[in-house]
Amino acid sequence: MNHSQPAASATSLHVAIIGAGGYVGGELLDYLASHTGVAQLTACSDSRAGQQVAATHPCLQGKLELTFTKTTALTDQADVVFFATPARVAAEQAPQYLDAGATVIDCSPDFRLQDLDSWANWYGGAHPNPQLVAQAVYGLVEHNRAKLVGAKLIAAPGCYATALQLAAVPIAKALAAAGSKQATILAAAVSGTSGAGRQTQRPELLLAEAGNNYSAYALGGHRHGPEVLQAIQQHTGIAAQLRFIPHLLAVPRGMFATVYFTDPAAAELDLTAVLQDSYADEAFASVLAPDTSPQFGQVLGTNRFVLGTAPAQQAVLCAIDNLGKGAAGQAIQAMNVALGLDETAGLRA
Amino acid sequence: MNHSQPAASATSLHVAIIGAGGYVGGELLDYLASHTGVAQLTACSDSRAGQQVAATHPCLQGKLELTFTKTTALTDQADVVFFATPARVAAEQAPQYLDAGATVIDCSPDFRLQDLDSWANWYGGAHPNPQLVAQAVYGLVEHNRAKLVGAKLIAAPGCYATALQLAAVPIAKALAAAGSKQATILAAAVSGTSGAGRQTQRPELLLAEAGNNYSAYALGGHRHGPEVLQAIQQHTGIAAQLRFIPHLLAVPRGMFATVYFTDPAAAELDLTAVLQDSYADEAFASVLAPDTSPQFGQVLGTNRFVLGTAPAQQAVLCAIDNLGKGAAGQAIQAMNVALGLDETAGLRA
Amino acid sequence: MNHSQPAASATSLHVAIIGAGGYVGGELLDYLASHTGVAQLTACSDSRAGQQVAATHPCLQGKLELTFTKTTALTDQADVVFFATPARVAAEQAPQYLDAGATVIDCSPDFRLQDLDSWANWYGGAHPNPQLVAQAVYGLVEHNRAKLVGAKLIAAPGCYATALQLAAVPIAKALAAAGSKQATILAAAVSGTSGAGRQTQRPELLLAEAGNNYSAYALGGHRHGPEVLQAIQQHTGIAAQLRFIPHLLAVPRGMFATVYFTDPAAAELDLTAVLQDSYADEAFASVLAPDTSPQFGQVLGTNRFVLGTAPAQQAVLCAIDNLGKGAAGQAIQAMNVALGLDETAGLRA
Amino acid sequence: MNHSQPAASATSLHVAIIGAGGYVGGELLDYLASHTGVAQLTACSDSRAGQQVAATHPCLQGKLELTFTKTTALTDQADVVFFATPARVAAEQAPQYLDAGATVIDCSPDFRLQDLDSWANWYGGAHPNPQLVAQAVYGLVEHNRAKLVGAKLIAAPGCYATALQLAAVPIAKALAAAGSKQATILAAAVSGTSGAGRQTQRPELLLAEAGNNYSAYALGGHRHGPEVLQAIQQHTGIAAQLRFIPHLLAVPRGMFATVYFTDPAAAELDLTAVLQDSYADEAFASVLAPDTSPQFGQVLGTNRFVLGTAPAQQAVLCAIDNLGKGAAGQAIQAMNVALGLDETAGLRA
Repeated sequence: MNHSQPAASATSLHVAIIGAGGYVGGELLDYLASHTGVAQLTACSDSRAGQQVAATHPCLQGKLELTFTKTTALTDQADVVFFATPARVAAEQAPQYLDAGATVIDCSPDFRLQDLDSWANWYGGAHPNPQLVAQAVYGLVEHNRAKLVGAKLIAAPGCYATALQLAAVPIAKALAAAGSKQATILAAAVSGTSGAGRQTQRPELLLAEAGNNYSAYALGGHRHGPEVLQAIQQHTGIAAQLRFIPHLLAVPRGMFATVYFTDPAAAELDLTAVLQDSYADEAFASVLAPDTSPQFGQVLGTNRFVLGTAPAQQAVLCAIDNLGKGAAGQAIQAMNVALGLDETAGLRA
Repeated sequence: MNHSQPAASATSLHVAIIGAGGYVGGELLDYLASHTGVAQLTACSDSRAGQQVAATHPCLQGKLELTFTKTTALTDQADVVFFATPARVAAEQAPQYLDAGATVIDCSPDFRLQDLDSWANWYGGAHPNPQLVAQAVYGLVEHNRAKLVGAKLIAAPGCYATALQLAAVPIAKALAAAGSKQATILAAAVSGTSGAGRQTQRPELLLAEAGNNYSAYALGGHRHGPEVLQAIQQHTGIAAQLRFIPHLLAVPRGMFATVYFTDPAAAELDLTAVLQDSYADEAFASVLAPDTSPQFGQVLGTNRFVLGTAPAQQAVLCAIDNLGKGAAGQAIQAMNVALGLDETAGLRA
Repeated sequence: MNHSQPAASATSLHVAIIGAGGYVGGELLDYLASHTGVAQLTACSDSRAGQQVAATHPCLQGKLELTFTKTTALTDQADVVFFATPARVAAEQAPQYLDAGATVIDCSPDFRLQDLDSWANWYGGAHPNPQLVAQAVYGLVEHNRAKLVGAKLIAAPGCYATALQLAAVPIAKALAAAGSKQATILAAAVSGTSGAGRQTQRPELLLAEAGNNYSAYALGGHRHGPEVLQAIQQHTGIAAQLRFIPHLLAVPRGMFATVYFTDPAAAELDLTAVLQDSYADEAFASVLAPDTSPQFGQVLGTNRFVLGTAPAQQAVLCAIDNLGKGAAGQAIQAMNVALGLDETAGLRA
Repeated sequence: MNHSQPAASATSLHVAIIGAGGYVGGELLDYLASHTGVAQLTACSDSRAGQQVAATHPCLQGKLELTFTKTTALTDQADVVFFATPARVAAEQAPQYLDAGATVIDCSPDFRLQDLDSWANWYGGAHPNPQLVAQAVYGLVEHNRAKLVGAKLIAAPGCYATALQLAAVPIAKALAAAGSKQATILAAAVSGTSGAGRQTQRPELLLAEAGNNYSAYALGGHRHGPEVLQAIQQHTGIAAQLRFIPHLLAVPRGMFATVYFTDPAAAELDLTAVLQDSYADEAFASVLAPDTSPQFGQVLGTNRFVLGTAPAQQAVLCAIDNLGKGAAGQAIQAMNVALGLDETAGLRA
């Protein structure tokens, strides 16, 4: 769909976004506006109903003529419903769309963790809809493609969880294949401030304070950590340890993870070869030569991920756009896989 | 005062700041913490009472051990009271401190405009305390030093008004001396986002949105404009016209004004000489050679102002720190003059 | 063309870029890599011959597999030759490609000014190929579309000249229609630092110095000024005056012009209506409601231009991407028009 | 010294800076211009001889009236000579100033490593003056104060080495006291681009490329690493391992190190208490409460260092200004200690 009057297509989807006024919502709209399989877009934002979408998302000016609607006005005719909402909203509202036959793709954390106690611990109490959790398919396409085909409820990964898994899962698999029984992974990562969402209650996200600044946060542990450990467990059987510190970067977007492997067996691996083998057929992956760093310029505004290795440090580096591969991009990639569309449709490779 | 236990001094002032949790308040604290004439600082912020000042103003970490207090706890023993508050607060609260003998320095707009109708037009209705307005002395020291000596109520100028006056008033005087009867001044200026204050209701001030961005605002007219015209009127008798557009710059602080003079007589002036004559004895001024631009690096973190000229364009350029000379710095400079202290005390030249 | 093995197409062009190692060259490659009419790309850079293009232009990583070649290796089989070179290179080298039948699109200043004396004044001496200048068609599509159809030698406008003309030419036409005989235009504009090119001899362009900075430059006059006056003369017959000061902005890319009209007749115009009428059918234009500012977020990474008006200030605002509509984007747009392709092919609207 | 005519003082030093045109040189000038013990400043830069210092260092505009002189014009009357030069210059030139009785403070790497083979490995071949190396005292005041008193040749630490040592040495001491025999330290750190110096041969340092970017570098190992291991060895006897990856941050200045301890004994330490004990009497240190991150705003423009801890991650965080505590600030601090001056003289605490 290129403009407000989309052409009909073989797959003329009606796609709705709940929480379309936030940064992930805006990025979803930006991608979907040029998705050839999308015939109709509905942008739900209760607080902005009736307003022009481009007034909230300036990058859509001249690209998408659309007004926000109330979520309650969303009919049951949407083929796909994205949630770009705070925790608990999707858990509560997903059933009605699933019942109506829609594919639901949740960009919030509601269906990411299979361990309900862990979810309750990180997200403020008991899960509102625990029986749905087991039905959800984790949406990291490169690691979970087969299960996503035909999936009706997809949990799009957290941004840090995406970067860390893309770097760590193939190495953890190789370590497991080499006989490792456990692993400790240390990671430092940075994120542009859009990762915190359009939050206006936190002055530290104002340019006047975040500009020129740099600091760590979530020093006691970040809620994306359990996703990474869950994935390593599922893919390798290893109960890994993760020590991970995120940092706030004074740019609007971009994410970079520096991941150290402490298992001595990692020193025996050809890290670059492991990654290249893992991602050889992936449209959105680049694995650089050893001792070459990814850069934000390679991923910003796209669904791509770029990996580098520092063999002397037994470290892997990963760059993504936190709103692209880290959120909206991979959610659409998962939608494409779930619905049998071209996996790259609508995505800027 | 260097730390929490200030040494007594010849002028051992007790200085209070009302609205100490905002950016101007923080900058006042930063300057005053090393002001040799200040013996006691009180930082009032009703919403932060009891919290460490450094938790709100990280740059004061290790430099100033102080907790916020409620404004109601401010005794009548403060020698100087600064208001760094939204419009109308100072107008309402100043009398009690004036009555107690304090010098009141208002960094808000409450006493800047002598024309009460204009004030009501720009600041949301009738002035709360009109009879006080005429007593206030306008605090642009370089243009108003004599009147500031001994002043008890000082209206510190607006940031844009400061930059525009520093550039325009000397030229307007020279034009008036050359016989001009009226003048049209065109200006474009930029400000770092701290100029908007610690506002958390405006997502466009978040780094995620303001970063990498640039836009104009107040296209119908900016409220600092009338200050400039009032000053030109007072200094020259000329009823000037001002067409001025401010722009939001994706940096935390800094201000730059590009001011064009359209009076044909301006082409006959040696703009650089006029400015150099005007500011020859000023501690905080630099007037650069013709066709040399001021830079933010010359003024950030200081009370300085740097002027340049573009003779072929009949333009004057002015750089200041919007929180320094544009707000807290000049307010302290005015305090120093009013109280007969060294004009540069506490100020980073 | 999506990747290194482009599919054949109805218009399977071989496009060469001379000076492909600079910022405009990189942007041309980025756009052309997804241009459906382009079958073969040659990236010429004598100093980088043999190197991967993506090593110089990280944003092309994974998007375009190509190595730089020497310009001397460029055969006469290119259908289109872009020059993204310093002044004088295109003037000297264009004839050989024109003689071989190629369409030449010059992103350098060599063919922008019809007045050879003015060119010599601004660009360091006599033009190397004066007889070619009259053959060149000025490449601002929205103002010159008819002449560009079939053009063989196209002078892509300067970045500031683009922004200023997009804002000023329609208004100047309306003023001329209202009887104006002359006009003085005052402008202040800002540009991201990529506008200076990949220059490594100027430390003021290093992030360590340009970051957080803001300053004006070219105070004696900028060489893009004569282009604007030439265009106004051609479109209206008016010999206008331009007072224009550019400023360096601490961002990689983006351009914004604030243009004041001083002719009293401008106060009688409906500036917004004039602009909307002028650009009603333009694919890359947006004209905002009065008193609404364009923003960088609306244009970065695209060939779009967004205009706003400040009626009370008799001013027009224009935002473009200096490397997009200000350089590579409009050069490709001009190519599309010259060759009869879809005007938007390869361009991100 | 406040201005160009410094007042005489009890310690009226003549201080010379060789390499005064670079970023560290400029920062030394900025600090020394307000150092009460400095009576005369000589700024040596062969390539800039005769030029105004403020033309190269805008922040000195109006603060320091001085012109650059050739190094050859530097008499033997300087009391203190700072080298802010590339590797090998100080090694070659220091003897003449030492012979003349000056105190030499080298901000370059020439005297940091006692292991001459390691130095040769990291700095491009055999040391030019190996016999001097053993005489040099390592200039990290907080860890080496006693040895610095009266020192004539001081090796100011590298910026990353400073941040890493401030974080790691006290913990390593505590681990050694608890019986550790070896330790592996993992660190990720970021630096503003001024850390690379005023280099104009590297386009990746241009704002047009470094702006909005983020990437790692020195993936095979950084030359500041051996300094850290040397210090840990000297202070604890432990032969530690360091795996350290530096990253380039899109800001002019600032440095932040995230340091993980992998020795299981670290989990038994009260990291915050260890750091608070170590730095209790230090004028430039702040140790924050557990799980609180340092911020750039606490250190930029100062000689301060701020430490935080993440006990759950067994990590210590350190923020410094790479040009302040990481270079010029600590060099002046070391000078103050060497000469018996107030340790904080000239330094913004």
